[in-house]
Amino acid sequence: MKKVMNEADRFVDEMLEGILLAYGDRLRCLGEDRRIILRNPGAAQGKVGIVTGGGSGHLPVFLGYVGTGMLDGCAVGNVFASPSSQKMADMIRACDHGAGVLCLYGNYGGDNLNFDMACETVEFDDIKTATVRVNDDLASAPRGSEAKRRGVAGMVFAFKAAGAAAQRGDDLAGVAAVARKALEHTRSLGVALSPCVVPQVGKPTFSIGEEEIEIGMGIHGEPGIEVRKMMTADAIAELALAKIVEELPLAAGDEVAVMVNGLGATPLEELLIVYRALHKGLEARGVASFMPHVGEFATSMEMAGLSVTLLKLDAELKTLLRAPASTPFYTNANK
Amino acid sequence: MKKVMNEADRFVDEMLEGILLAYGDRLRCLGEDRRIILRNPGAAQGKVGIVTGGGSGHLPVFLGYVGTGMLDGCAVGNVFASPSSQKMADMIRACDHGAGVLCLYGNYGGDNLNFDMACETVEFDDIKTATVRVNDDLASAPRGSEAKRRGVAGMVFAFKAAGAAAQRGDDLAGVAAVARKALEHTRSLGVALSPCVVPQVGKPTFSIGEEEIEIGMGIHGEPGIEVRKMMTADAIAELALAKIVEELPLAAGDEVAVMVNGLGATPLEELLIVYRALHKGLEARGVASFMPHVGEFATSMEMAGLSVTLLKLDAELKTLLRAPASTPFYTNANK
Repeated sequence: MKKVMNEADRFVDEMLEGILLAYGDRLRCLGEDRRIILRNPGAAQGKVGIVTGGGSGHLPVFLGYVGTGMLDGCAVGNVFASPSSQKMADMIRACDHGAGVLCLYGNYGGDNLNFDMACETVEFDDIKTATVRVNDDLASAPRGSEAKRRGVAGMVFAFKAAGAAAQRGDDLAGVAAVARKALEHTRSLGVALSPCVVPQVGKPTFSIGEEEIEIGMGIHGEPGIEVRKMMTADAIAELALAKIVEELPLAAGDEVAVMVNGLGATPLEELLIVYRALHKGLEARGVASFMPHVGEFATSMEMAGLSVTLLKLDAELKTLLRAPASTPFYTNANK
Repeated sequence: MKKVMNEADRFVDEMLEGILLAYGDRLRCLGEDRRIILRNPGAAQGKVGIVTGGGSGHLPVFLGYVGTGMLDGCAVGNVFASPSSQKMADMIRACDHGAGVLCLYGNYGGDNLNFDMACETVEFDDIKTATVRVNDDLASAPRGSEAKRRGVAGMVFAFKAAGAAAQRGDDLAGVAAVARKALEHTRSLGVALSPCVVPQVGKPTFSIGEEEIEIGMGIHGEPGIEVRKMMTADAIAELALAKIVEELPLAAGDEVAVMVNGLGATPLEELLIVYRALHKGLEARGVASFMPHVGEFATSMEMAGLSVTLLKLDAELKTLLRAPASTPFYTNANK
């Protein structure tokens, strides 16, 4: 399979160099290897810092959400690999503005281990940290085992809500509470139609049958709930809605933020056809859609497929989602 | 190949319904078939209207640029097919705010014919029109035959510049002159790595070899300049830069707007690696990059590949590109 790159070993480095050349007025790196990306300029003294980190290959996740009203920093790993705890610790130090730092990241083994070590390390510098792990992917572990679930595109809503809470002046415990609240009300389900190619492997690391769709497959190709014959857009939307509503009961009069996220190779036209079915399914339940997000927010390089995320809203969450946010990869200014 | 859709015959209709359900606060349609998309609310009386139109399958092109600071309306055709002249005429009437309407669209046979007929039709309503055809694709006809060239992603810069000129109060001749000036200074070159699937056909309508790259292929699979062995990102960037600079001479001290546009299935990571090489190539020539656009701006559904567009700037064009613009699919607020 073809990738637009130079040497595979330089894939992440050259991507980061490209980002800093394009957006150096708003992002900067810490260290010559560019593996820590920070807001430029940094936030004001007294604001709670919010950081994330994880493997590459999911743009705009993770570093695409570093900017005003969202994240202060991101530690960048190789493709599908956790960054080191040392990078995370250096980043946390750089993002502490005297009010502590929230580590808000996807619930993956390597990231958990490394962020835990990093938080212990910065304790010696008297930096307070809090940790919230994103676990919105309902297909990745059964109900009752939510703590084992992975984080997928729903993390963008958590970044947005927590970022706005920090911006309005909440303290560390408050910002962490907002992130937890948003995640308690967020569920995602993804479907994959084709695999992706890790640059250093050079071929798909898993396969999906020519006529098949994988329900609940993870963004690194982790096995999902089941394999089915390819489904219509309406059936995909109805399945996602049904699975999500089982865990996030919706009643007439409720409002939800809807995200239809393309995994990399699915045309925007098709995402909009899925949005149509979701909107109608919600409408039939008396539920209103608030500030729809249809596009690519968390990808797996050239994987075809999509994920559906719902965030059940209250007045506070609506205000936080609407609060201004701007990064080179995301803004809600036109949403 | 798999497409996320319901019936192929309903692909465009359901996409449009999805768009209006998601963004009905900022877009509206004229007519029950939704094939004319307009700004909601419309522009103020006295502003020159700007409209476009063309086949579906290229989102955000074309209708994604309908919004404040850009276009007033878009006529929507079936996938890769021109809308009718009747729809175009109805749209032009709806977008005339007393100061005339600029028809700014890609230089394709069906669109040319239908827009010309539509402009003749609205003459009977005493609506003044002007026509500017986008022809930025340097691979689609040789130098000296610029009038035969097709329009590709460079049209976004023309929409932006003309939209800002209309917003600042230029008259119809002035807005058309700005569009022409922007296009005179804009060149694009695309490369394709994989074909795309028209919904009603259900399989790729052309093929690209497993190890090959098509230089200059059009966004509907039109033949390009040549077929080569797959190239590195740096080689693609250097080739595009060399071809563009042949026609758009750049000297130390010049500034250009750079767009690296994904055709649908190429990961954002890879577009950024190409941006890096372009930025360095420009830097080596003493040329600065202004407000980079890296992402998907004009696609061919699930086609893999990308296009490079350069717009050579002067002070006026910089001001016009920077002027506020906001549509559900595009904003320069975070650029």
